[in-house]
Amino acid sequence: MTLSWTRHATDGAARLGTLHTAHGDVATPVFMPVGTAGTVKGMTADAVRSTGAKLILGNTYHLMLRPGAERVARLGGLHKLADWPGPILTDSGGFQVMSLSKLRKLDQDGVTFRSHIDGSPHRLTPERSIEIQHLLDATITMAFDECTPFPATPDEAKASMELSMRWAARCRAGFVPREGYGLFGIVQGSVYPDLRQRSCEALTGIGFEGYAVGGLAVGEGQAMMFDTLDVTVPHLPETHPRYLMGVGAPDDILGAVARGIDMFDCVIPTRAGRTARAYTRAGVFNMKNARFADDGRPLDPDCACPLCTRHSRAYLNHLFKCAEMLGPILLTWHNIQYYQDLMAGIRGAISTGTLAQFAADTRARWGRGDPSAAELR
Amino acid sequence: MTLSWTRHATDGAARLGTLHTAHGDVATPVFMPVGTAGTVKGMTADAVRSTGAKLILGNTYHLMLRPGAERVARLGGLHKLADWPGPILTDSGGFQVMSLSKLRKLDQDGVTFRSHIDGSPHRLTPERSIEIQHLLDATITMAFDECTPFPATPDEAKASMELSMRWAARCRAGFVPREGYGLFGIVQGSVYPDLRQRSCEALTGIGFEGYAVGGLAVGEGQAMMFDTLDVTVPHLPETHPRYLMGVGAPDDILGAVARGIDMFDCVIPTRAGRTARAYTRAGVFNMKNARFADDGRPLDPDCACPLCTRHSRAYLNHLFKCAEMLGPILLTWHNIQYYQDLMAGIRGAISTGTLAQFAADTRARWGRGDPSAAELR
Repeated sequence: MTLSWTRHATDGAARLGTLHTAHGDVATPVFMPVGTAGTVKGMTADAVRSTGAKLILGNTYHLMLRPGAERVARLGGLHKLADWPGPILTDSGGFQVMSLSKLRKLDQDGVTFRSHIDGSPHRLTPERSIEIQHLLDATITMAFDECTPFPATPDEAKASMELSMRWAARCRAGFVPREGYGLFGIVQGSVYPDLRQRSCEALTGIGFEGYAVGGLAVGEGQAMMFDTLDVTVPHLPETHPRYLMGVGAPDDILGAVARGIDMFDCVIPTRAGRTARAYTRAGVFNMKNARFADDGRPLDPDCACPLCTRHSRAYLNHLFKCAEMLGPILLTWHNIQYYQDLMAGIRGAISTGTLAQFAADTRARWGRGDPSAAELR
Repeated sequence: MTLSWTRHATDGAARLGTLHTAHGDVATPVFMPVGTAGTVKGMTADAVRSTGAKLILGNTYHLMLRPGAERVARLGGLHKLADWPGPILTDSGGFQVMSLSKLRKLDQDGVTFRSHIDGSPHRLTPERSIEIQHLLDATITMAFDECTPFPATPDEAKASMELSMRWAARCRAGFVPREGYGLFGIVQGSVYPDLRQRSCEALTGIGFEGYAVGGLAVGEGQAMMFDTLDVTVPHLPETHPRYLMGVGAPDDILGAVARGIDMFDCVIPTRAGRTARAYTRAGVFNMKNARFADDGRPLDPDCACPLCTRHSRAYLNHLFKCAEMLGPILLTWHNIQYYQDLMAGIRGAISTGTLAQFAADTRARWGRGDPSAAELR
């Protein structure tokens, strides 16, 4: 049996569940730390595990270029290479080909592009993307699609969505079903309700182990993103996991969970960790700020990560001022811990039917508590 | 009672002992990882501890500039700041003022210099260096000296050594004795036996808790360094620990231990870890070398570090090719583990009177074992 999902409880549209995979179970709603090139930047696998993270994401585009999909397969797969025996989701490469590579050219069959590293020519098709993800040994394979740019006219969005739906069928045909593995389809259609509905219908007609909402968090803003979820999610099956790709800030996650989303990934906690931005229960802080130079308090007294239990804000400020590697290491660790704690809080709130209150309390704390907080919000 | 050292066994000139400090005991011979600015670069304190390291080094020059000695004291001292309750040795700042700072000007009373960071003016004297190290809460304080440049004429070396001996007396006068803390004097005299002997006599006349050999590993080469140890160490008391500053490569350490040295520090394992140079039982490897791209073996099968137990050479090669932070993190961790394992092996060999055999075996393994090894030696 392929990968499956069990629903345990609901709270409005929000769902509490478990994803059953070949590489272990995952409680949902879940946030996946991004392990771009086979490593969550700045973190050992043990450090990632210590935060409670169960499922991480790898990027097909980066891994096909370096170290190469066939090489990863020869070396025993991405789980072994990266010391991550747990489940791994890989994206299809489509989004990053479009945004990162040079001289990309889209045709009905796939995309030809040049590597952003050395300019070497490459080609991705639905079939090749699925094959690469198989070689990587992805637990969850994502369909190869075109992430419709924003803004797009209704005609552009329709043509792009229809291309992605044809590709989705080819991905389904190319995917080799394996026990506890799964393939997710990706809904497109920009911000147009009728296109989103038709995309959902096309994908559910094909049938996938999960459904992702793509083409959001690309500049449309939170309000339009939430509006699009409102007209998309009701057309997805109640029985399958739903994944909002590339989202997001904590507040985005709170809103999307309330709209029925189960899975998230985003570079925010890791990228912010490298640039001195701390995500905490009291808001977002710029740890380079001089106000922290003599602040002997823990960054977040309610956090169990090594930064918060062993060090002061002053130390972290010092590390970033000196450009010491330990600054990004400790703050990435903390930010991932914060995201995992947020998801655990969300899951607990759904189980007791108190998600709305939890979200309100969480948002309220971001704006107060610490007088030096909230400067970045 | 100030810091002390107990000798347990000897093997030729080599000594096995224990350093008793306010922050715990340390088995010698010992290698101290370098924690320049209050962090061993790329390592959490837990990671450093996991290698068996008990004693780390901090740099007065870096810490006085950032975050500042008075600030460190306000924040509870370096042990608390850096999550290192164990013993810490700080250098005096003299060496780095001479090598790193701009517009330095030496006079009989001290050194005036400009920060390499922002050009701001600073001054170090023997008294201020001791005060800074006290503010940092160094377990072992180093005397403020002039590291005699190499080469130096006999007259230059004599004048420099005599200046350092006058400063040593001022350091002794300025040091506040505390239970389990200690002050080490530093022998100078370049490569001249009579100057080295006179420096030893001057320092033992003043009296310190330990004696360092300075002014070596500054370009004179291993043979001249060993020759200088041969004419210096016999003039130091048998009852006190001896520290060879800034040394060195594994082979330097083997030779210096055999000449009666008990303590070492060097940036090699950490700096090499950031630049893809792996120190292993089979020699030194450049992990960026393409030969490792498909090498699924552990870097060093006899090493217990996370890199060697969880990952392949191919993964490390990939991380360095992608400039991923995890490459330096894992390889620094490994290199420190290798150095700690080397010191444990040395201590075991002294205890059984087999140091010469251990050194011969260790050197022999560097040159063979793995066909891809030794390329850098």
